Amino acid sequence: MSHPFDAAIALTPCGDGVFDGATHAGYANMVGPFGGITASTLLHAVWLHSQRLGEPLALTVNFAGPVVEGPFRVTARALRTNRSTQHWHIELEQGGELAAGASAVFGLRRDTWTATEIAPPPLARGTPVPVKGLSPRVAWPQRYDMQFVKGGWPDFDNPQAEPADSHSELWIRDHPPRPMDALALAAICDAFYPRIFRRRQRFTPAGTMTLSTYFHADAAALAAQGTRAVLGRARAQHFGGGYFDQTAEVWGDGGRLLAVSHQLVYFKE
Amino acid sequence: MSHPFDAAIALTPCGDGVFDGATHAGYANMVGPFGGITASTLLHAVWLHSQRLGEPLALTVNFAGPVVEGPFRVTARALRTNRSTQHWHIELEQGGELAAGASAVFGLRRDTWTATEIAPPPLARGTPVPVKGLSPRVAWPQRYDMQFVKGGWPDFDNPQAEPADSHSELWIRDHPPRPMDALALAAICDAFYPRIFRRRQRFTPAGTMTLSTYFHADAAALAAQGTRAVLGRARAQHFGGGYFDQTAEVWGDGGRLLAVSHQLVYFKE
Repeated sequence: MSHPFDAAIALTPCGDGVFDGATHAGYANMVGPFGGITASTLLHAVWLHSQRLGEPLALTVNFAGPVVEGPFRVTARALRTNRSTQHWHIELEQGGELAAGASAVFGLRRDTWTATEIAPPPLARGTPVPVKGLSPRVAWPQRYDMQFVKGGWPDFDNPQAEPADSHSELWIRDHPPRPMDALALAAICDAFYPRIFRRRQRFTPAGTMTLSTYFHADAAALAAQGTRAVLGRARAQHFGGGYFDQTAEVWGDGGRLLAVSHQLVYFKE
Repeated sequence: MSHPFDAAIALTPCGDGVFDGATHAGYANMVGPFGGITASTLLHAVWLHSQRLGEPLALTVNFAGPVVEGPFRVTARALRTNRSTQHWHIELEQGGELAAGASAVFGLRRDTWTATEIAPPPLARGTPVPVKGLSPRVAWPQRYDMQFVKGGWPDFDNPQAEPADSHSELWIRDHPPRPMDALALAAICDAFYPRIFRRRQRFTPAGTMTLSTYFHADAAALAAQGTRAVLGRARAQHFGGGYFDQTAEVWGDGGRLLAVSHQLVYFKE
């Protein structure tokens, strides 16, 4: 029996870079699927493509419109292939309309000088924080084991005082456990709930418009992480005009930076 | 006489979202044009498009291959228009081959709760730092007045000890001065030289593969900045495997965050 994550990102090749997929109730969000599962699905299309060169280096997903429950079609097209890098354009369509577009950079990695300038969050034990006050259709948080060190899900029914910042730190892994790879990592990078929820301690409609993830670990390093939880940190930079941006880092064993991710989110209030 | 920036991003509409442009020697980089001028040119195509809704919110440019000196063609296509946001796909072609692809999110801004979580760099006087040891064809740094507070251009002929971080802080504006707008801002977001130059204090081939910019200021706020210099900060997060990512912030008068930008860069050494 396949893992729910793999069932959710499953694609049937129809030839020429076209793939059929379908939404999975286990990853449902407020409106349509969890953005992270859509991001992984688009990355998966390139992963499965016969012309793929190397591993994912960067992925930008633009959430153009709602994805509704049911089947969709993904088309992946290699725009340009260089000696060691490759640029892709990917589209997800439903009923002939674009629901999400994406660009991906794939490529080969080489041994080079290496350094990490940012520091991982302090290692600390986390605790589970229940998701409350969201629609019962929001299933995706149950697909993750999340142990919060700080900045857990706000309780919209019993709001706390507004914190001075929007930071969260948490241990996260797929539930049930699943070996780490770039596909799982792409989804985890979007698993940090909208920072406006934390800052305002109340529910406001919010949705990611564009999400960019940079993959800093190769397949071997991700495989070495196995099913152990990774340490995530998320924080906003600026809220205003109906939009805010938030940034996430995902750290693996031994303080290894696996990926960083940035997104611009709309909010209403 | 038009400003060199406006001459460099100039596009001639050919109908149906197609525009003709050409490289400008004043913004030449090591190979092809300065990435920031390419980013602005792609954004300009949407700006000029008759179907444009609102202002730029986000721009991702994928540098797929070298842009060579001479004419190019830009095609901008609205993928989806919602009530208050719009998603675009843009391509820059030369000789029938894709040189750069981009996605842009445009939209309307509304008055909402606002907060900036990150702090601007301390205000301090900067000093000009000459560009040395790069090919004489690299003209674009002369199109900016850059006053460095820290982390100025390394002198490849007289390298300093490797610093512990890659941070730069500088005052920057177009040279000659030009009123700020989203087009100028998109270019400035890429005007922070590759962080590997600073960390290693020696020249290494490096090039941006993908660049994402989030615009936090509306047209009125940008216009209010006038021709005064903005304060920029750039820093890398992780180097390894032949790639690194760097992040930039651009701050305007009164500590107002105008934009943040992220990019993934290849390097060879």
